[in-house]
Amino acid sequence: MTAEEQQQATPPAEEAAAAESGEQVITPWDVQGGADGKVDYNKLIEQFGVSSLTQDLVQRIERLTGRPAHPFLKRGIIFAHRDLHEILDCYERGEHFYLYTGRGPSSEALHLGHLVPIMFTQWLQEVFDVPLVIQLTDDEKTLWRGLEQAEARRLARENCKDIIACGFDVNKTFIFSDFEYVGGAFYRHIIDIQRCVSMNQVRGIFGLTQDDNIGKIGFPAVQAAPSFPGVFPHIFGDRKDVRCLIPCAIDQDPYFRMTRDVAPRLGYQKPALIEARFFPALQGESGKMSASDPNSAVFVNDSAKQIKDKINKYAFSGGGATLEEHRSRGANLDIDVPWKYLNFFMEDDAKLAAIGREYGAGRMLTGEVKAELIALLTDIVGRHQQARTQVTEDIVDAFMAVRPMHSALKR
Amino acid sequence: MTAEEQQQATPPAEEAAAAESGEQVITPWDVQGGADGKVDYNKLIEQFGVSSLTQDLVQRIERLTGRPAHPFLKRGIIFAHRDLHEILDCYERGEHFYLYTGRGPSSEALHLGHLVPIMFTQWLQEVFDVPLVIQLTDDEKTLWRGLEQAEARRLARENCKDIIACGFDVNKTFIFSDFEYVGGAFYRHIIDIQRCVSMNQVRGIFGLTQDDNIGKIGFPAVQAAPSFPGVFPHIFGDRKDVRCLIPCAIDQDPYFRMTRDVAPRLGYQKPALIEARFFPALQGESGKMSASDPNSAVFVNDSAKQIKDKINKYAFSGGGATLEEHRSRGANLDIDVPWKYLNFFMEDDAKLAAIGREYGAGRMLTGEVKAELIALLTDIVGRHQQARTQVTEDIVDAFMAVRPMHSALKR
Repeated sequence: MTAEEQQQATPPAEEAAAAESGEQVITPWDVQGGADGKVDYNKLIEQFGVSSLTQDLVQRIERLTGRPAHPFLKRGIIFAHRDLHEILDCYERGEHFYLYTGRGPSSEALHLGHLVPIMFTQWLQEVFDVPLVIQLTDDEKTLWRGLEQAEARRLARENCKDIIACGFDVNKTFIFSDFEYVGGAFYRHIIDIQRCVSMNQVRGIFGLTQDDNIGKIGFPAVQAAPSFPGVFPHIFGDRKDVRCLIPCAIDQDPYFRMTRDVAPRLGYQKPALIEARFFPALQGESGKMSASDPNSAVFVNDSAKQIKDKINKYAFSGGGATLEEHRSRGANLDIDVPWKYLNFFMEDDAKLAAIGREYGAGRMLTGEVKAELIALLTDIVGRHQQARTQVTEDIVDAFMAVRPMHSALKR
Repeated sequence: MTAEEQQQATPPAEEAAAAESGEQVITPWDVQGGADGKVDYNKLIEQFGVSSLTQDLVQRIERLTGRPAHPFLKRGIIFAHRDLHEILDCYERGEHFYLYTGRGPSSEALHLGHLVPIMFTQWLQEVFDVPLVIQLTDDEKTLWRGLEQAEARRLARENCKDIIACGFDVNKTFIFSDFEYVGGAFYRHIIDIQRCVSMNQVRGIFGLTQDDNIGKIGFPAVQAAPSFPGVFPHIFGDRKDVRCLIPCAIDQDPYFRMTRDVAPRLGYQKPALIEARFFPALQGESGKMSASDPNSAVFVNDSAKQIKDKINKYAFSGGGATLEEHRSRGANLDIDVPWKYLNFFMEDDAKLAAIGREYGAGRMLTGEVKAELIALLTDIVGRHQQARTQVTEDIVDAFMAVRPMHSALKR
């Protein structure tokens, strides 16, 4: 689920009160910053009880994998975790773990914010060489967004192509739609999880109410289940001991807090998490990216002209109101969207630092920074579109096939 | 679900109040008669909004099938329905319908009360020559009774053997365990049903509360789904127009009231129902048959000696307190359990009427009536046990196989 669903969810009274009083509210359906519209990530770490991802841990990843850290790790975009050190301990001992991430297929194409956890997951799979499962929650979109099933399943398959285009290893990646794959071991795990969770608990964790449909109320177990290797007998056989690491945006943490509570009662270890900040809307951090507002985000199927127009017209600038003011006081990088986007996607650390220095000092203008961003995104999106044209229906079928994959645990 | 689960369910305030004030309370988990401990079936027809099964309808069944009515029909044991006349209209026009019934596998063996809807369903299949689906709700027993899944699945298979021993046609009968069969079309129907039903509604219909686990809250959709032919593509292909007739005990009516509300929103016709009275516990109508109290019921795996002992020791008698009183005032057949059991299982109408006449007048003694019942049940249970020994694992597999069954719609 994404913040887009906020209009469908009824936050409980205490959260509504928190939002009114200017406190930040972060749930899988609702991301509202504090009084200034910004998300206070340090406060979030404390509220959620997650751990800060220290540079020590980042360096340990580099040592263990022999690979330079992903820019998201170096720049604090991936900023929090739960039990990541235990996963690294596993890896160091030569034990196995697997990755689990997901996507709620509510739009024809992904936007850049959707790409963040997917690109990072692809990197994790590459450097650790581990199996990966990707859940397409077409059932959730039917329950929350009122999408007809046929449409939700179609979008799941379209989104699957965008995901595959990010470069996953077909020999170690299983992508599944809930509508297709729930059943058997998956269904049995859902029931075992649901047995451990009361309506009171989902009210407390997710803000679901008596007015919500019973599918929504049961859904948290559907998102929880793939955290357990028993859901994938074709990959893990009957092994219950394979650890799971979940890369996701921080708003998904409530699902996995619930999952971690339940895990020991089902004889499983708790899944570990590695969590990302939110990718800001073009209008700024307090805005919301929404598939229903094409001008709020850059989508992976946007044309070069659309990208250029969106960035130039909508990307919120932290530059001075006038040239004189900008030259004298510089840009406010804290609120500048082009700068934030560059932080996510520009790989060249030195060039990025130079832009930050020059722009922050007022020597570089917003227009120039936007031009850099337009060139960068046009290149990334263009390459993505090129990769996606190579993703045939047969390749989608190959990723989505329920098939023996025991070799995925060899490395 | 059965009345056995009442201890797990929390009835809503209004129902608790009703029970305290001596009003009857009938839910899938709770059967409490009125102030006198008896269920007032006429009142229930009004409360539930079902129709009385008139002798006109019974005669129409006889005319259409060319077969004498089942004793349950003639004796008012099957006493209520919803839209049965529409099913008969279908049949008369040469159109197809199918039967759907179920069993919650919470005990090693069935008792006589469990047999009532199953025997009646077997008769319906035989005289109408129609396909039948039988749901084994092993998931429900895990959610409500705390049964481990392996045990629930084992009991489902054991109960399946008892069901098969009742004489179903393997060419037209599909028996499925939820833990095995939920998935694909079944899961997609569950989600579509859950989308139409709020927590408030399941609270109102079933008395589920915020303290209940979210699996219980979602479960009504799992029991509802097989009312729709789309759940069984291997039987019905993509036909959405095949009508469904559900034989069940009246306490299951709330599930199908919900189902009938949802049906038009999913493009289906409402399932029709044909509903049975409760089979009384040995201790009388206000007692409860329970698998955890072996002396409350006769089980299909009881020995001849156990049957004899249970009937003699526990079957509540409506006879006079003394021989003199009995001879002068006769037995009170309204509360006499041996007489009630004979009404369910003695096929010979004339003999049954004679026993009623003689016993009611005090000329026949309780011991004599019990001897008749013991002989009858020993024969029925013995034949059942004999039939069950013929049910091999291969035969179970054959009934439970997901297989093309399009010929089931030919007659």
